[in-house]
Amino acid sequence: MKDDELKNILAAFKEGALGMEAALELIREASCKNLGFARIDNQRPERQGRPEVIFCQGKTAAQVREIVEYMLTRDTNILATRATAEVFAAVSEICPRAEYNETARTITVRKVALNIPEGYIAVVAAGTSDLPVAEEAAVSAEILGNRVERIIDVGVAGIHRLFDVIDLVRGARVVIVVAGMEGALASVVGGLVDKPVIAVPTSVGYGASFGGLAALLAMLNSCAGGVAVVNIDNGFGAACVASAINRLP
Amino acid sequence: MKDDELKNILAAFKEGALGMEAALELIREASCKNLGFARIDNQRPERQGRPEVIFCQGKTAAQVREIVEYMLTRDTNILATRATAEVFAAVSEICPRAEYNETARTITVRKVALNIPEGYIAVVAAGTSDLPVAEEAAVSAEILGNRVERIIDVGVAGIHRLFDVIDLVRGARVVIVVAGMEGALASVVGGLVDKPVIAVPTSVGYGASFGGLAALLAMLNSCAGGVAVVNIDNGFGAACVASAINRLP
Amino acid sequence: MKDDELKNILAAFKEGALGMEAALELIREASCKNLGFARIDNQRPERQGRPEVIFCQGKTAAQVREIVEYMLTRDTNILATRATAEVFAAVSEICPRAEYNETARTITVRKVALNIPEGYIAVVAAGTSDLPVAEEAAVSAEILGNRVERIIDVGVAGIHRLFDVIDLVRGARVVIVVAGMEGALASVVGGLVDKPVIAVPTSVGYGASFGGLAALLAMLNSCAGGVAVVNIDNGFGAACVASAINRLP
Amino acid sequence: MKDDELKNILAAFKEGALGMEAALELIREASCKNLGFARIDNQRPERQGRPEVIFCQGKTAAQVREIVEYMLTRDTNILATRATAEVFAAVSEICPRAEYNETARTITVRKVALNIPEGYIAVVAAGTSDLPVAEEAAVSAEILGNRVERIIDVGVAGIHRLFDVIDLVRGARVVIVVAGMEGALASVVGGLVDKPVIAVPTSVGYGASFGGLAALLAMLNSCAGGVAVVNIDNGFGAACVASAINRLP
Amino acid sequence: MKDDELKNILAAFKEGALGMEAALELIREASCKNLGFARIDNQRPERQGRPEVIFCQGKTAAQVREIVEYMLTRDTNILATRATAEVFAAVSEICPRAEYNETARTITVRKVALNIPEGYIAVVAAGTSDLPVAEEAAVSAEILGNRVERIIDVGVAGIHRLFDVIDLVRGARVVIVVAGMEGALASVVGGLVDKPVIAVPTSVGYGASFGGLAALLAMLNSCAGGVAVVNIDNGFGAACVASAINRLP
Amino acid sequence: MKDDELKNILAAFKEGALGMEAALELIREASCKNLGFARIDNQRPERQGRPEVIFCQGKTAAQVREIVEYMLTRDTNILATRATAEVFAAVSEICPRAEYNETARTITVRKVALNIPEGYIAVVAAGTSDLPVAEEAAVSAEILGNRVERIIDVGVAGIHRLFDVIDLVRGARVVIVVAGMEGALASVVGGLVDKPVIAVPTSVGYGASFGGLAALLAMLNSCAGGVAVVNIDNGFGAACVASAINRLP
Amino acid sequence: MKDDELKNILAAFKEGALGMEAALELIREASCKNLGFARIDNQRPERQGRPEVIFCQGKTAAQVREIVEYMLTRDTNILATRATAEVFAAVSEICPRAEYNETARTITVRKVALNIPEGYIAVVAAGTSDLPVAEEAAVSAEILGNRVERIIDVGVAGIHRLFDVIDLVRGARVVIVVAGMEGALASVVGGLVDKPVIAVPTSVGYGASFGGLAALLAMLNSCAGGVAVVNIDNGFGAACVASAINRLP
Amino acid sequence: MKDDELKNILAAFKEGALGMEAALELIREASCKNLGFARIDNQRPERQGRPEVIFCQGKTAAQVREIVEYMLTRDTNILATRATAEVFAAVSEICPRAEYNETARTITVRKVALNIPEGYIAVVAAGTSDLPVAEEAAVSAEILGNRVERIIDVGVAGIHRLFDVIDLVRGARVVIVVAGMEGALASVVGGLVDKPVIAVPTSVGYGASFGGLAALLAMLNSCAGGVAVVNIDNGFGAACVASAINRLP
Repeated sequence: MKDDELKNILAAFKEGALGMEAALELIREASCKNLGFARIDNQRPERQGRPEVIFCQGKTAAQVREIVEYMLTRDTNILATRATAEVFAAVSEICPRAEYNETARTITVRKVALNIPEGYIAVVAAGTSDLPVAEEAAVSAEILGNRVERIIDVGVAGIHRLFDVIDLVRGARVVIVVAGMEGALASVVGGLVDKPVIAVPTSVGYGASFGGLAALLAMLNSCAGGVAVVNIDNGFGAACVASAINRLP
Repeated sequence: MKDDELKNILAAFKEGALGMEAALELIREASCKNLGFARIDNQRPERQGRPEVIFCQGKTAAQVREIVEYMLTRDTNILATRATAEVFAAVSEICPRAEYNETARTITVRKVALNIPEGYIAVVAAGTSDLPVAEEAAVSAEILGNRVERIIDVGVAGIHRLFDVIDLVRGARVVIVVAGMEGALASVVGGLVDKPVIAVPTSVGYGASFGGLAALLAMLNSCAGGVAVVNIDNGFGAACVASAINRLP
Repeated sequence: MKDDELKNILAAFKEGALGMEAALELIREASCKNLGFARIDNQRPERQGRPEVIFCQGKTAAQVREIVEYMLTRDTNILATRATAEVFAAVSEICPRAEYNETARTITVRKVALNIPEGYIAVVAAGTSDLPVAEEAAVSAEILGNRVERIIDVGVAGIHRLFDVIDLVRGARVVIVVAGMEGALASVVGGLVDKPVIAVPTSVGYGASFGGLAALLAMLNSCAGGVAVVNIDNGFGAACVASAINRLP
Repeated sequence: MKDDELKNILAAFKEGALGMEAALELIREASCKNLGFARIDNQRPERQGRPEVIFCQGKTAAQVREIVEYMLTRDTNILATRATAEVFAAVSEICPRAEYNETARTITVRKVALNIPEGYIAVVAAGTSDLPVAEEAAVSAEILGNRVERIIDVGVAGIHRLFDVIDLVRGARVVIVVAGMEGALASVVGGLVDKPVIAVPTSVGYGASFGGLAALLAMLNSCAGGVAVVNIDNGFGAACVASAINRLP
Repeated sequence: MKDDELKNILAAFKEGALGMEAALELIREASCKNLGFARIDNQRPERQGRPEVIFCQGKTAAQVREIVEYMLTRDTNILATRATAEVFAAVSEICPRAEYNETARTITVRKVALNIPEGYIAVVAAGTSDLPVAEEAAVSAEILGNRVERIIDVGVAGIHRLFDVIDLVRGARVVIVVAGMEGALASVVGGLVDKPVIAVPTSVGYGASFGGLAALLAMLNSCAGGVAVVNIDNGFGAACVASAINRLP
Repeated sequence: MKDDELKNILAAFKEGALGMEAALELIREASCKNLGFARIDNQRPERQGRPEVIFCQGKTAAQVREIVEYMLTRDTNILATRATAEVFAAVSEICPRAEYNETARTITVRKVALNIPEGYIAVVAAGTSDLPVAEEAAVSAEILGNRVERIIDVGVAGIHRLFDVIDLVRGARVVIVVAGMEGALASVVGGLVDKPVIAVPTSVGYGASFGGLAALLAMLNSCAGGVAVVNIDNGFGAACVASAINRLP
Repeated sequence: MKDDELKNILAAFKEGALGMEAALELIREASCKNLGFARIDNQRPERQGRPEVIFCQGKTAAQVREIVEYMLTRDTNILATRATAEVFAAVSEICPRAEYNETARTITVRKVALNIPEGYIAVVAAGTSDLPVAEEAAVSAEILGNRVERIIDVGVAGIHRLFDVIDLVRGARVVIVVAGMEGALASVVGGLVDKPVIAVPTSVGYGASFGGLAALLAMLNSCAGGVAVVNIDNGFGAACVASAINRLP
Repeated sequence: MKDDELKNILAAFKEGALGMEAALELIREASCKNLGFARIDNQRPERQGRPEVIFCQGKTAAQVREIVEYMLTRDTNILATRATAEVFAAVSEICPRAEYNETARTITVRKVALNIPEGYIAVVAAGTSDLPVAEEAAVSAEILGNRVERIIDVGVAGIHRLFDVIDLVRGARVVIVVAGMEGALASVVGGLVDKPVIAVPTSVGYGASFGGLAALLAMLNSCAGGVAVVNIDNGFGAACVASAINRLP
């Protein structure tokens, strides 16, 4: 809880604009807001430099709407991931300005303008089928306050495509590599740049890809040193790490 | 059983040089020789164009020696894989001309000169630690009657090393790629050549390589189309397939 | 990029038939064509002897159509795998001559006549349930420029069925074995022929087949030496390797 | 507890040859004998037609010796499996007639002559490296009261070796198939005989055999109907099932 | 091919009732009938004592119908497993007497009366949810020519339920135990009877049952000696083994 | 069977109110009631202090209804888990007072009032998506006769939320921790309380959570000593263990 | 930090018996003692009712000795698990009264007499080979302040052995079941008692036990409701949970 | 190859100080030095900002020595990981100033002084047993040119230990978290800091840790957003990523 916020509450309480119960509730809420089925972590922006993000999977449309409804009362941007069209419809009812990215399956609400650092994040995807994950990473990185360059379909089956754009990749402050199947692109990029590489395995592939396990293991075993990995299909997670890096002062 | 061989037996039998039992035994042996603990498949050269190979793992030194002793009576070269120094010592006693390759852990005895086709097999290894498997592949391919080019330590962490030698790789009739860790080299080579690529995952790596599983899955999921895979660390198996390809008329 | 093609562009530019931007674009396109969501690898025919193939899984019907639309402007045959009826409908709208193989789930467009080598590829399937994968292999091999012999339902539960057709199998230059369940057919064929064998495990089976894992592991562990393996259900991949072998000069 | 045994105890008690405590102890022992670290199941012969068998792995030599010492007081044959030479030395001290089979790693003591049924069990092993498991199965089956035929090294890489001996296999009342690597022999035999087939996967192989997992899965997925499977390397378990079948009246 | 059958063909040919082609076709068919997408193994009854069984999974309704249509021309009973209602509808059109068991998902056609041995097979299921697999086993065993006793819902959570019926279990010549979750029933039954036990793990359970893997591993590791295992949910496979045992002379 | 119950039956029999068959049936039923497809374990309340619970998965709606119908004749509360709306509809027809909890997917019928111990069970869930499992645990614990405190959405990403409610957690007699993803909450709670902790991994998460495997393994490997684990998503199982602990005298 | 302890420090400081630095150090140490390579958690007794326990695996003998040396200055009992003889030798040098249990691989030092509750913990082991894990559980439970009853070798292969001692099992306040192989004993005991059951899978077994995985999965999938599970071979973990239960007021 | 270096070579060649072959060799070597069994990637410092690092596992002591011998001729620091004492002995012979860190198993040779950025890397380890991996990370990070703060034994079983040092953790520019068992520390730290977190799972633990798999999966599934993961026990890999982040301008 920021000092200013707390001072305002206390002042309002002293002046009688706030009763005892209301003041207590506001102070409690500065830690987190209990909606019964969810506790919104209001300390997160201060602690982590980004607001809580809504992971829609496993939540009902009504639950997501109620969370958004509350978050709209706070001064932060809103990001919901793994959102179906049905969830978006429920959110739209109470927030017409919410935007839906069908490929990325994200809902975003922009309320505050963040300062954007000069450096950019490169999101590099091996194939067209990896687009949904790459787009989740890109959209997430943007709403967390970063410039993003998207580079799609440069997998190692035609490696000259990567060399065509290598300067754009090398120019980034941090690189997100999104790849399914054997995930070799992460190692190849990792061997060509001197920036941190965040690899996202995708569940693209069939048979012995075992839902992305093949790409995950390959990326974890990368022979190139500067590669770290996030969960399968976790574009959002990659964006979090990349944003934390890109926004380092 | 070749006709000539059979005719000789029958002639010898008719002339009385062979008794009934001995003739029967020779005809039976043309199919396979039963040593009790092993049945040597004497039809294999005819059926598969290569003699039976001795896989030493799980066999005692005495058993390997006895098999070699019998095979020395036949007109074929001999190859034993996964041979320890102890096994080699046992074989040397009865066959001083046997050669041991310590890196490849192979024993070879050259008795017949095969005709060697013009094309060659390229054995490409990602790292120094993959040498034992690469060498098993190379030695096996040579004794099966092939020319071999060895290209070592051109893994994707420094991909320019591969481009330095790409003409040698492309010139081969078939390419064996040996790689551990994430096995990305197979996909990269697969995307650069128009020849069949046989990939051998190795157990080199640690942690989540799970004994070569990571490289195996990566190679099976190669986004480059012309790649087929053999068992982890199975240099010999790769040599068999590559030889069958290289020796196609 | 072939020299002839480049000469034509330069000549047209000199004559003023092409402006600067258009000429640049054409030269860039010779490397790859960037559609935004995909980069078509136009060097592949030269580099690998076959055009880029469209893997439909994970792509929208609109994306596949747009890729086909572009490829129709180039001088190659077109192959799309894992195509649903919906994808085929979208493609048909812009290319009425496209053909759909429902069993193989492939779309093919034949624009150029390839020279077909004399040798053939045998596609041997263990059971009727393996047909879709076997057919994907066969259709792919054919459009890549090969003669194919299909031999269906000769699994080891009734092994005499294989011996009935063994001459047709042995006559091939390379054999593709397609099998689910325990995948034993690959080892049995591998022990009977002197040609390279490409094994395709299928996800046919239940329980502890674990989506084809049982057949995959069995084929990788084949006690017969000349067997290499591709991904589960990857008929197309097997065709690529087999074609690279069969079309060796 | 057999009636005769109980009658003898009661008679001895009545006559005063046995005191109260001793009689109680004998009656309790008829159920099981508590050695503190082990409870010998004395009802097993009656309940299952075979005595308790000592699985030496994880037991100290002293513990095995003490169990044997007790069992020598009972009227049954003794079988200890997975016995090291050290364990055998400990047992020999108290039972000089105990026999050790080094290949099978079994200790046997023959005290009673069982009636042996006419039918026999065929133990068929794919390779020489499978001998220890095959021998454990054979020795176990013999001491459980069965005739056994051993058929070694007839794996599918040279399938004519199996056809050479198929009559001996078909003549059995039940067939045990022992195979590592891809375990295909179980399916092939299963498709050729009309008798129950008990398959034993072995840990022979390397790389993706994963300690016998490949053979295990293959055997469980056998396309031949009459095959059932026991644990990896569990020759003894196969013998138990086969004996229960062979000794059916 | 039975001698009588062959004699009839030759006689008919000699008399001119059969032309050369028709005679050849009949002799070929005695080995197997090639339907293009399937080869019906007509030697199986002779070789294995049971006709080929139709595994419907992965086959179209039209394919199953065509196979049934052909098999109706032969003198055997017909069993199709994993049959959906749609497949049954297709079969009914050409064979109104076919019977469908909805729980077991089997289609059966009884054409010949087999001699039924005196002994019976006990099918013991741990829970109500295991019924489909237990019923597949029971129906299969019956059409293969066996008497069957069904004992349902006697899992170890209430083990007295098993003791209530233990005499019926012990009276069988061979016992099939069907259980999901932890599969403990197989070990408990295995410890209580002296007959061979065939265990069928089922995919019943949730979470860490991993589709029946838990029960499968448990049954393979049974501490009771006389237990052998078939594939997950493979009631038919258990019936094959049990029938081979029960029908031993 | 309680003595009183037995006396009543015998008395009724003597008085002629019950015939021989009816009396036998009642005595048999005291052990278990055989419905053909299920045997209701009527000894369970006595043996385990709770009635048999109906696991609906894999049972038809008709089967569940028939089981409930029978259980309504007994003096126990009824709990059915994993019940769909369709199953509830079937049960409602015969038992209008049955209650359905849509989140927990449970059906409950309260017939007897249990004495409720003073201590309570804390059900602590890491996230909103874990609610269905947490609610299954809570509802189950309540009908087994316990007071429950629900604490939702206190996962470690915002660990201060847990410290806000730590007194409520510490005040419980036993704590159930429900968490998906990496399941870290179990270890954190385990390190902060001196009460037994029962951890329930959930299948919430994506990619490498592998259906809850990640959380399961994490909880089993908890570095905090007092944590035990039940199956993935098994809220009911956790409630059973927790109730057995909470209801200890 | 207990109030008394703090008061003493402050008093000593005021009186000058403690300087500023020394007082600060003592207050810091009440939280934890930093040895550089380890931080001893001195709050644990207060927070969890038991002192920190030394897990020796992965620590050098010198490190363990230094930790013990420090802990001897505190008023708690000491328990070290997974201790080799070498570690014990190092500890003995500085603490001659330390006791080593070779079977359990534990080192214990008893400094304080805990009050022992009336109820006891039953440690039930399936086989002799499970003794080391069972003994680790028993020794740990005892030093944590509990009475223990050991019941060894009552596995389900001879289930009457369990019924012989069922009253002793049922009399416990909490039951620890230790079993390897298929781990069925946990389910059987779980179905027979109304007390919480803590199951410990062991790595006893071979082949497809996969180091205890089979028993672990079986126990997690127990059809008996009141069973919770700890890590493979984790006797100590089971003792912690059981002690937390048994010592509930 | 840096321009200066190239100019020097050309000048020397022009002046005759270098012959043609020697000049060519030097220019080739600027790309990589081929030792036969290894190709030292001399472009790596330029391309990645760090020299090639020697991974000793799978290499002979002689091979490592030869690589070091060559690298000593170049202007870079040297780092060898997974070095045994035997390897160090071999290296010492030719480079007495090489240093060996026994805990980290690293060999380091400092030849050049790197500029060290102001920010530091925090290496946070959950337990004493994780020290070897933490130390590998720390030593690697230092020789790559970073300040490092080590914080050992602050695992979640006593989470107050982490809060004691949280300011030191939060002060870092990037945090490496090293943890075995359930790896929960990564999520907890991830939720408390706003800097990128690189998590290293270790193989510390037993039973169901499966060699570090449990911690790996947990870290990949972290509910805290800013966590990326490297391979099990891969302290060096974490140092590479962290150094790339920390050294960003």
